[in-house]
Amino acid sequence: MSDFPVQFLFDFGSPNAYLSHKVLPGIEQRCGVSIDYVPVLLGGLFKMTGNRSPAESLAGIKNKPEYQNREMQRFIKRHQLDAYRFNPHFPVNTLQIMRGAVAAKRLGVFEKYVDVVFAAMWEQGLKMDDPAVVQSALTSAGLDAAALMAMSQDAEVKAELAANTQSAFDKGAFGSPSFLVGDELYFGKDKLRDVEEEIIRQRGTR
Amino acid sequence: MSDFPVQFLFDFGSPNAYLSHKVLPGIEQRCGVSIDYVPVLLGGLFKMTGNRSPAESLAGIKNKPEYQNREMQRFIKRHQLDAYRFNPHFPVNTLQIMRGAVAAKRLGVFEKYVDVVFAAMWEQGLKMDDPAVVQSALTSAGLDAAALMAMSQDAEVKAELAANTQSAFDKGAFGSPSFLVGDELYFGKDKLRDVEEEIIRQRGTR
Repeated sequence: MSDFPVQFLFDFGSPNAYLSHKVLPGIEQRCGVSIDYVPVLLGGLFKMTGNRSPAESLAGIKNKPEYQNREMQRFIKRHQLDAYRFNPHFPVNTLQIMRGAVAAKRLGVFEKYVDVVFAAMWEQGLKMDDPAVVQSALTSAGLDAAALMAMSQDAEVKAELAANTQSAFDKGAFGSPSFLVGDELYFGKDKLRDVEEEIIRQRGTR
Repeated sequence: MSDFPVQFLFDFGSPNAYLSHKVLPGIEQRCGVSIDYVPVLLGGLFKMTGNRSPAESLAGIKNKPEYQNREMQRFIKRHQLDAYRFNPHFPVNTLQIMRGAVAAKRLGVFEKYVDVVFAAMWEQGLKMDDPAVVQSALTSAGLDAAALMAMSQDAEVKAELAANTQSAFDKGAFGSPSFLVGDELYFGKDKLRDVEEEIIRQRGTR
């Protein structure tokens, strides 16, 4: 654990958050830090900022969506993330599974929950805004789906997700994935090299 | 000169093209390649693709413009580009000075013209869509302003700029700065590290 916070502000609905998630362990290992995963609601951030998903903002623009896809393929190839598949149900409403992430922290199964839900979204292509699908995915992975889904309805859990989202906004975030190294904000999977350099820089100043 | 094309597709109107221009000599030196500067008309690319400048597309969105500015400051600091100043006349119509770039190639003064006009735009903050200002900037730098401005009205020069822009569109470009390493397109100053790696990779395969 480093003595300055390194945070990954994520929403399962973002394919680039999934791709980042797969690359973060290497950064933790190389830098000797533990990265704190903070669930935030991307839909909430979009409402607060007026920002929109690339799927919306790039609609009708020529060449730019193709380029973004090319960049995604480059990232996948560079990091050998061949399990990635675009979710056929995109966009998936992530309110329940993001509340579930906060619940999983309280139930002590956060790391496993995050792995399972990211894989369900971006490897298996499941419709993770359907409660039956969520229950089945969690149960198959050996998680206590009933406990997680009950806890995710807890008022404190709901409030914590909303507070995380507000805090992300206050720190300058407008989308997912975002990263904080101390107070330095970075947006997008393409900034992971900068994140890594900034971790090393901040560590060197202590 | 490398045996595969490395191109910088630029429009003087883009501050990120200026910042890239200042960083490209280092890449040329480290990689042992010569990068071919290709004048394109950004307004033309925007019309062809439906893309818009960040100034337009980010208007009214909270946090994102501030983040883009933060990223620009990081780039400036990393590469020590302290001479940069935002142009107070932005957006500047660049049709004349881009045609001038094509004319400068024909007159054998391309490198100097590019340096002078980028500096006029993004160091001195001049209103470079005013012919009198352009003439004065070119003359002060020892360039033959009358010859450049006359040649820039030549039908072949006009056609060449249009053809460059069409070719950029055909290769997938949608904005400035764009880079081509062989057929691989990269967009934005943040991709210059990828451009450098791709030059080294393509060189290694020959």
